[in-house]
Amino acid sequence: MEQQNELPIKIVLDTWYGNVSRADALFNTLTDEQLQGEVSPGRNTGTYLLGHLTAVHDRMLPLLGFGAQKYPQLDEVFITSPDKSGKTMPPIADLRAYWKDTNETLATHFKAMQPGEWLNKHTSVSEEDFAKEPHRNRLNVLISRANHLSGHYGQLLFLKK
Amino acid sequence: MEQQNELPIKIVLDTWYGNVSRADALFNTLTDEQLQGEVSPGRNTGTYLLGHLTAVHDRMLPLLGFGAQKYPQLDEVFITSPDKSGKTMPPIADLRAYWKDTNETLATHFKAMQPGEWLNKHTSVSEEDFAKEPHRNRLNVLISRANHLSGHYGQLLFLKK
Repeated sequence: MEQQNELPIKIVLDTWYGNVSRADALFNTLTDEQLQGEVSPGRNTGTYLLGHLTAVHDRMLPLLGFGAQKYPQLDEVFITSPDKSGKTMPPIADLRAYWKDTNETLATHFKAMQPGEWLNKHTSVSEEDFAKEPHRNRLNVLISRANHLSGHYGQLLFLKK
Repeated sequence: MEQQNELPIKIVLDTWYGNVSRADALFNTLTDEQLQGEVSPGRNTGTYLLGHLTAVHDRMLPLLGFGAQKYPQLDEVFITSPDKSGKTMPPIADLRAYWKDTNETLATHFKAMQPGEWLNKHTSVSEEDFAKEPHRNRLNVLISRANHLSGHYGQLLFLKK
């Protein structure tokens, strides 16, 4: 039974790692100049999406109970504000480094977890609500963020020649 | 234990239904004219992506062991061939109907399944390989296709004004 229970969790984790890995590969092939382009006319730039994805992943640290965000300064530029808000973005080289570090930090925490811990509540749900809605757990956060990454990955592909 | 095992499966299913539902809502708001536009210059049209997603979902019927595809004629136009191949597409009204019917057909099968059946093998893996790689199960297909839908959904959003 415990064996069975681990399988769905492994599948979600594999999806997460797979999505991060293909996004990594894409960011690595895109030049800084390509990243500064819009994914479609009038839409987000690659730079904004890189910062946005990094900030969203960084916020998973407190959400999953792993501690404070490492790059909270990104929130205002890449989550609270839309692209072209006039807010100053960090240099692209820094954003690339934050992206890599954030995903590595998450992976380190994930690898230290027992499968069953994925079914514990995340920090944005109260004990009371969690008792009634046990699917509001860490695994739910992981699959939701993996999906979020897929959506933006599909857009970022348009920056390729 | 069985209770615990059901939670990750519920979470993946909720993700699937949520993704289908938001794509439905988007397709419903897009006019036929908007659907005929490209999601980004030189990229796929909305019509092609509607047919592509329908064909990919239709192929889940045999892959998950539910029976034959309902719309196998879509494969050649929307899977084997890229957009603008010159292959004749069905009218958009038909594609909209196939999309809806395909997802409803899948949902009917999903709702008849016991959670544990999601951990059974899908039909593209041999018994021998499945014995060694038990994560190559139906749940894996479901999460993979949910992610695939997210990627194209992110692109289809660009057809909105």
